[in-house]
Order: sequence, then C-alpha cells, then structure tokens
Amino acid sequence: MSGDTNLLTELIEALRCLPGVGARSAQRMAFHLLERDREGGVRLSRVLGEAMQRIGHCKSCRNFSESGECAICTNVSRDASQLCVVETPADLLAVEQATGYRGRYFVLMGRLSPLDGMGPQELGVELLQRRLAGGEIREMVVATNPTVEGEATAHWLGQLARAAGVRATRLAHGVPLGGELEYVDRGTLAHAFGSRQALED
Amino acid sequence: MSGDTNLLTELIEALRCLPGVGARSAQRMAFHLLERDREGGVRLSRVLGEAMQRIGHCKSCRNFSESGECAICTNVSRDASQLCVVETPADLLAVEQATGYRGRYFVLMGRLSPLDGMGPQELGVELLQRRLAGGEIREMVVATNPTVEGEATAHWLGQLARAAGVRATRLAHGVPLGGELEYVDRGTLAHAFGSRQALED
Repeated sequence: MSGDTNLLTELIEALRCLPGVGARSAQRMAFHLLERDREGGVRLSRVLGEAMQRIGHCKSCRNFSESGECAICTNVSRDASQLCVVETPADLLAVEQATGYRGRYFVLMGRLSPLDGMGPQELGVELLQRRLAGGEIREMVVATNPTVEGEATAHWLGQLARAAGVRATRLAHGVPLGGELEYVDRGTLAHAFGSRQALED
Repeated sequence: MSGDTNLLTELIEALRCLPGVGARSAQRMAFHLLERDREGGVRLSRVLGEAMQRIGHCKSCRNFSESGECAICTNVSRDASQLCVVETPADLLAVEQATGYRGRYFVLMGRLSPLDGMGPQELGVELLQRRLAGGEIREMVVATNPTVEGEATAHWLGQLARAAGVRATRLAHGVPLGGELEYVDRGTLAHAFGSRQALED
C-alpha cells in the first residue's frame, strides 16, 4: 500500500508482536478489524493499553495482578498451609481449572535456565524463602514442567523446602489418562513401570 | 484467575476479536505480552486505536486510506486509463506485489452476494459508474476471485463496462505455474484445455 497508508503498514507491523503471528496473519487481522470489527479493535486497543499499564505482579505469589496482592493470596478461605509452585501464570491457571487444589501458589515466572540468564534471583528465591520461613506452610507442591529444566528447578525447590523444614511433594509422573501404551514415549513408560502402584481393590 | 485480575480476563476476551484466535491462543498472547513484550503491547494498543479511528476509505477507489484520497489514486505517474477492480484491499495488495500493473484500482470491498446483503449499492456501483463515465478509463481489468460469487460479480462488472463503453478484460484462468496436471482440479484443467493457446516460437 505504497505511501499514505503508513498507519496500516504500522498496524500490520505492530500486530506481529503477538506470538505466532507472521506477516500474512497480521495483514489478515488488520483487514478483518478494519472491514468488519472496528468496535472490537477499539475495545482491544483500550483494554490492551490498560492491561499493559496496570497489570503487575502480586507481591506474595508473583502472579499477574492488578492490585498489590492477588485474589488467591488474599482469599482467606484458601488453605495457607499448602503452597503450589508453578513456572508460569498459565500453569497456575491449568492447575486451578483441572484440580480441586485450594491452597496458595507461588509463580516462578520462569525456570532455572542459566543460559537464558534465569537464576534463583530471577525466580524470586528471596520471596519464596521468606514465605517458606514464615512457618505457615506445611507442604510445598512442586508443579514445574516435566522438562529437563523443570526437573532441575524441581530439584532446587526441593532443597529450598528441606532447608526450611517444609515437606515437598511433586506431581506424579506416569502414563497420561486416555493414552495408549503403544504410543506413550519410552521415558514416560519406563518411569510409569518403575513407579507402579498396588492395584486398589 | 479468580477475582481480581478482571483486566487480564478482559484482555484475553478482547484478543478474541482477532480472526483465528480462540480462547487458548488469546491466553497465550496475553501472557506473552505481559511477560515478555509490554513495549510491543503498548505500541500495538496505540497504533490499533489510531488506525481504527483514522483509517477510512479513499473517495475514488474505496481502498483503505488515512487521507481522503489514497496514494495510488493521487499518484500522477500511474496510468489513469486502466482500472483494475478487485474485491478486497488484500487482493489489491496481492496484485500490486505480484504484477507490474501501474494503473489505478477500484476496491469493491466485497462481492455480489445477495444472501449476505451485498448488492451493487454496497459495492459502490455509483462511484464506479461515475468513474467509468469520466472518459479517462479505456480498460477495466476485472480481478475478482475465481469463485462462484466472484464470477457473478465479474459478469456484472462486464455489463457496467459495456454500458459505459469501456473495454473489460479479466484475469486468465488456467493451470497455475509450478503445479502438476495430475493434481489440478478438473474444472481448472477443463478450462485450461478449452482455452489452449498457440505455442510461442
């Protein structure tokens, strides 16, 4: 669009900051909003600007929050003796939606990954240690991802818990429900086989 | 994210106005912007708001434009005797990028489709007739899509051109370059066979 519609070019370029959006999708999005959904575009612009400005981190769990402390941390009906440690807000959401867990959380906002410059400091180790030392927490549920870095992070979290005298547990590994053994990867199958449990009557 | 981060929920909801973005991708986008690219998010918010407000339609070709008349229509070095009619701004862009066409355009912003309420009025027939009657245009290149509705639109455009005494041409149909005959659909192959041309020496 040679020349004047610089704003359109700029919009297409700006849309590419979204993950998974390339030049082509960005163009399609821009045209869609301009042709069919200006209202949605205006709303998105407003909400996005507000969110970028106002959403910060909860001062006790590091999850995203508009206020100083998030709704989960301030919810007195939640069990303060349990602390589930997850890597990201998306993981927290997944745990909240899938399980009946009613304890508190701690969001690392990453995982130990020295090559990416993610060390204990970046994961909020001081805040976590302070919470563990607070005396309220009896169990730390380590819910990092079952990846190499996630496992390393889990190991480190276990050490932190031990140092604070808090019991640490982790998510069970094994064969996913609804899967077929034939298609489960070897590592998972070997682990599940090794950790086999007594059949319940 | 029960309770306080209503703004986050609102952001995820607002992102769903983008085409092809469902609940899951919207969540991923929101977290990505918040965690990793606040700057991009702020920029997108600003550009989007501005674009939604300021981008209108060119008064001579109906393409998107920030000013009353777009850069192509005001570009005196472009051939005013040729008018290429396309369905959408994206089609215009495709023609601009793929061909050496140096004439003007007319963007229908749709195609004839009575069921969707798209009639001649919605496609800017009056403006198009006025331009055809202007006397400057000698050839109208019909570049509607090779779909049923696009073909119907092409037929209608041909009638308009004839009524105004302007020569109408259309894009050639045939086997796409780089394709294999084996995989070309029957309709296209039959058409290409019927419209076979003399081998150039």
